[in-house]
Amino acid sequence: MNSHCPSEPTGWQQVLRSGWLSHELSGPFQLRHGASGRARRLLFSQLFQPRNLQAGGEAGWDGRPGEPTCRSQKLMLQAGLIHPASPGCYCYLPPTVRAMEKLIKVMDEEMQAVGGQKLNVPSLSSAELWRASGRWEQMGPELFRLVDRHGKGYCLGPTHEEAVTELVAAQSNLSYKQLPLRLYQVTRKFRDEPKPRFGLLRSREFYMKDMYTFDASKEAAQHTYDLVCDAYCSLFDRLGLPFVKVQAATGSIGGTVSHEFQLPADIGEDRLVLCPDGHFAANVETLNKEQTSCPTCGEKLTQTRGIEVGHTFYLGTKYSSVSNAVFCSPQNKLQLAEMGCYGLGVTRILAASIEVLSTDDSIRWPSLITPYQLCFIPPKRGSEEEEEGAMLLERLYEDLAEVLPHLTGDSVLDDRTQLTIGKRLKDANKLGYPYVVIAGKRVCEDPPVFEVWNQNTSEVLFLTKEGVIELLSKVQVL
Amino acid sequence: MNSHCPSEPTGWQQVLRSGWLSHELSGPFQLRHGASGRARRLLFSQLFQPRNLQAGGEAGWDGRPGEPTCRSQKLMLQAGLIHPASPGCYCYLPPTVRAMEKLIKVMDEEMQAVGGQKLNVPSLSSAELWRASGRWEQMGPELFRLVDRHGKGYCLGPTHEEAVTELVAAQSNLSYKQLPLRLYQVTRKFRDEPKPRFGLLRSREFYMKDMYTFDASKEAAQHTYDLVCDAYCSLFDRLGLPFVKVQAATGSIGGTVSHEFQLPADIGEDRLVLCPDGHFAANVETLNKEQTSCPTCGEKLTQTRGIEVGHTFYLGTKYSSVSNAVFCSPQNKLQLAEMGCYGLGVTRILAASIEVLSTDDSIRWPSLITPYQLCFIPPKRGSEEEEEGAMLLERLYEDLAEVLPHLTGDSVLDDRTQLTIGKRLKDANKLGYPYVVIAGKRVCEDPPVFEVWNQNTSEVLFLTKEGVIELLSKVQVL
Repeated sequence: MNSHCPSEPTGWQQVLRSGWLSHELSGPFQLRHGASGRARRLLFSQLFQPRNLQAGGEAGWDGRPGEPTCRSQKLMLQAGLIHPASPGCYCYLPPTVRAMEKLIKVMDEEMQAVGGQKLNVPSLSSAELWRASGRWEQMGPELFRLVDRHGKGYCLGPTHEEAVTELVAAQSNLSYKQLPLRLYQVTRKFRDEPKPRFGLLRSREFYMKDMYTFDASKEAAQHTYDLVCDAYCSLFDRLGLPFVKVQAATGSIGGTVSHEFQLPADIGEDRLVLCPDGHFAANVETLNKEQTSCPTCGEKLTQTRGIEVGHTFYLGTKYSSVSNAVFCSPQNKLQLAEMGCYGLGVTRILAASIEVLSTDDSIRWPSLITPYQLCFIPPKRGSEEEEEGAMLLERLYEDLAEVLPHLTGDSVLDDRTQLTIGKRLKDANKLGYPYVVIAGKRVCEDPPVFEVWNQNTSEVLFLTKEGVIELLSKVQVL
Repeated sequence: MNSHCPSEPTGWQQVLRSGWLSHELSGPFQLRHGASGRARRLLFSQLFQPRNLQAGGEAGWDGRPGEPTCRSQKLMLQAGLIHPASPGCYCYLPPTVRAMEKLIKVMDEEMQAVGGQKLNVPSLSSAELWRASGRWEQMGPELFRLVDRHGKGYCLGPTHEEAVTELVAAQSNLSYKQLPLRLYQVTRKFRDEPKPRFGLLRSREFYMKDMYTFDASKEAAQHTYDLVCDAYCSLFDRLGLPFVKVQAATGSIGGTVSHEFQLPADIGEDRLVLCPDGHFAANVETLNKEQTSCPTCGEKLTQTRGIEVGHTFYLGTKYSSVSNAVFCSPQNKLQLAEMGCYGLGVTRILAASIEVLSTDDSIRWPSLITPYQLCFIPPKRGSEEEEEGAMLLERLYEDLAEVLPHLTGDSVLDDRTQLTIGKRLKDANKLGYPYVVIAGKRVCEDPPVFEVWNQNTSEVLFLTKEGVIELLSKVQVL
């Protein structure tokens, strides 16, 4: 049996001086196993992110003529974040996978903080299960349907109320003492949209975080509902996304109470009405046409559009009664569990964040989930600062790796030293790294001074090595 | 907008003394946000893991009469690790998701150490793409096929050579300087097996890590092939799994060179021949019947059975020529990329590990990916040691959380204090936590002595608090 000895990383300096990148030794990543964790060095030129950042560059564009499009779709295609595979189905390229994994970590934290336990339910969901709940017919052409080699019918789950309720119903001796059960998953979902569009905002294959809760009473279920809504608020707060929670229709999911979490945006497909004083917010589909003023304070309601990024439902016993999901009460009676279900669009939140935070040609991410926190730009090849600048940037990186090791795996070195600093900074601006650290002219001063851009605030600072490290010590990496 | 304030954890002591578990405050998890990271306390009674550990208990069994079964399937069903949804489709319950996420971390480390970049390709894969490679017909009934609302044909990807090659081919200006490209994903795959069986060993929906590599020459591609094979060896070594790498047939994937990574096991579906001195190993399907001795040393070959957990293929230009996946050579000519593809069965490795490491009634995991590293067993309710034992165990946990905070999220407290220590230890033995820490009779000695079982070595140690902490400081948590 072989044993594995990863090669020692070569330094940036060597990489930059030799003008040649040793794929054999490094590839785009370099990883050290060991107690100190990872120390990866990511080289811009080696990252698989087929960019087309030139103005008007729309290679890989999948829009059909006349099809509406939106900012996030355009930016994500241009920046090599997604690649169209078929209508409404995208390959997520490496930076998107990084952002998605970070977002899932935040979701895990928030769900586990409210007692969520993570499971994973199959995509193939039997026709019988959906017939029993009445949704095999009700969902119509939105369900992707197929038969297996034995002629048995399945759909590809767009949501999993039936499957998870069945799972809980199968636990024959569930006691009230084990409730609440708050089960969630983060998996791929499928929906045969009539008009897939707007990139990851309305696609046919997407990732969703879906939670299903089981409580012993209506009151307990209402409490769970409130807790999960609070967790959703916490999540959007941590991402720094402006959101509104609005009363919503229950649609094909059913139940009696429902809220949507919406990011206000012109491109949004939902129409919302809001009380300007914050007393009331609703999706217009829940209101009578006549209702133009706030039911509590009487203020005139304003209208806006929103992108739905989360949806919560109080289900009661709609599904538990179908699957007979019961528990044993303190009085030793079998009772139906009171249910709720809760969804967050994982890939949709990625695109919606870009939609609401970016400008027309520069991507901005929520800092917490940006694919890379940092971009380093060494001097241009042949410039006066080339040798010293590269060396000082290398030293800065090494000190950073010592003091803030979690940042090293989140840092990219823009090694395209055939390009000017200005040109690379422009690309960095378009790609939206929160911090860009440049070894420019002033790197030759004593002590050396680095130019640091905080792209989320558009601030530029000139800092010594110590200053850079202090600034970056505040950056949180998931 | 709401802001989120997670409640302070209640202590075990309080939990145990009150005899009542505050779901409202805690649920099964408790999580603190903050610099110090997580401090979760998992209570056995609240974990969703529908166990049926009694001998002969086979509730939830999905075997049809006469269907063959195996150890891992039986153990995983009994221990509440999986739940059958439909033939060959399983819900993965929370402990399995934990183990799977750890396994994926190990895979990420190994793949990134050889320059792997992670992406995510849709499951829906268009019929055209598969027709172009000839596999739409070739794969026969193993492909799950469906049509969308517009009548367009798709399959559910069992593997993604076509899709990833198409993605790379779409990068119009790929230079030899950007090669090698080593792209991988960890996603759900689908295969309509004629006979799904053995639980996660042969299922119809499963997780696979699949890598696709693109090199500038045959030599470079061969080097990539060797690197990835070494990474696979490293992975199985780190998991402590006995494996053999054997020459293998290329099957429907194609290409010219192929190896399988096999775990020797009676239940394995592959027949292998091995040179007793380690000079040669092959899947019998690659050999003539006459070949009974080692081609290099002449020793008589021995036979064994194996579970295939990994498979590597040198593909050449089979797929790159179909999609025209080319790069620009140093001589400025367009050349077809030389490809390889590499698969690891994620869910299959989980089951295969249990298959080869466990006894007939006690699960054993590779230590690195066990769902929980630690189980704490406090004294029985009403016993002499109850009060003091619970308090001392709580203190031990708190000190552990201080010194080894990474262990806290990997620890379960078996709070079923209505049961004897012996009965709970028996369950812990069946479930296979690597370490079990018991507050037994000797916890009342001065200094207090804990009973610690290392279940992977069947050792029992009697240790002071300091001794326990020293022992556990060696445990690696992913």
